Amino acid sequence: MTKDTPRPRGRQLPTAEELRIWRDFIETTDVLRSRIASRLQSDSALSPGDYAVLLALSEAQERRLRSSELATHIGWERSRLSHHLGRMERRGLIRRQECATDPRGAEILLTPTGAEAFQRSTVPHLRAIRELFVDALTPDQLLAAGEIAAALGAHLGRRREE
Amino acid sequence: MTKDTPRPRGRQLPTAEELRIWRDFIETTDVLRSRIASRLQSDSALSPGDYAVLLALSEAQERRLRSSELATHIGWERSRLSHHLGRMERRGLIRRQECATDPRGAEILLTPTGAEAFQRSTVPHLRAIRELFVDALTPDQLLAAGEIAAALGAHLGRRREE
Repeated sequence: MTKDTPRPRGRQLPTAEELRIWRDFIETTDVLRSRIASRLQSDSALSPGDYAVLLALSEAQERRLRSSELATHIGWERSRLSHHLGRMERRGLIRRQECATDPRGAEILLTPTGAEAFQRSTVPHLRAIRELFVDALTPDQLLAAGEIAAALGAHLGRRREE
Repeated sequence: MTKDTPRPRGRQLPTAEELRIWRDFIETTDVLRSRIASRLQSDSALSPGDYAVLLALSEAQERRLRSSELATHIGWERSRLSHHLGRMERRGLIRRQECATDPRGAEILLTPTGAEAFQRSTVPHLRAIRELFVDALTPDQLLAAGEIAAALGAHLGRRREE
């Protein structure tokens, strides 16, 4: 496909070339994701889920969030998040404060241990992002990656509402 | 960052803009991946792992592969694949033929049930790829997605060898 090929209307299925790009794209982003996760684990003993929770709490006011807000923030289902938070609490990274009168559920607090773990993980994690993602791409490709993410995000958001 | 901004040499960490692109890119591809997985599940009752195994076997000569070849093909660790194949075997989608004399492990065969499940899933799955991925992007963005995947793949391959 060249950029001048018009997209046929009413076509149901992707062309062989579109499918090749899809496979390359989804497989490579999967490898990228798992390489970044491995680095985070070996550098800082955190999973990507741990990091997402610690990041959200670090950026929250007073370093605390309702579990419902946290779930929305990191895009997880409540039950998955709840199990994950249990494990993080046992490691001392967060603390759950049950709130019987508030239907939005427990409040999740960043502990000093969690804040320190997040702090220590930040520089190695950012370095891994630079080494494995940013350095892989030319400045033009990096801009294009941003545009592709924006286009996909808008499209998926629109389709969810249909 | 504009495309004319030179990348500073020896810089350790990504800029705020590079980090924003990273977060958008990885979060959006994650949403895309899970939306495609939901479609595959609701259309065909297959997980992405099931689909990857069925696809690899469908494309293999005589529709059979050593489990070690299959693991390499779909990029999974042996133990993860082995558990997954156990579940697929119980559903009648594949069959494992143990081979005591061959150190490369069992041979995995596509059953008629598995072949039929794969066959039935193909059109809805390709349609989901078109609707959720291809249709989200302009032809230029689609080409750029292919180039980004190629650049990331080459970079990650080089770094693995370091």
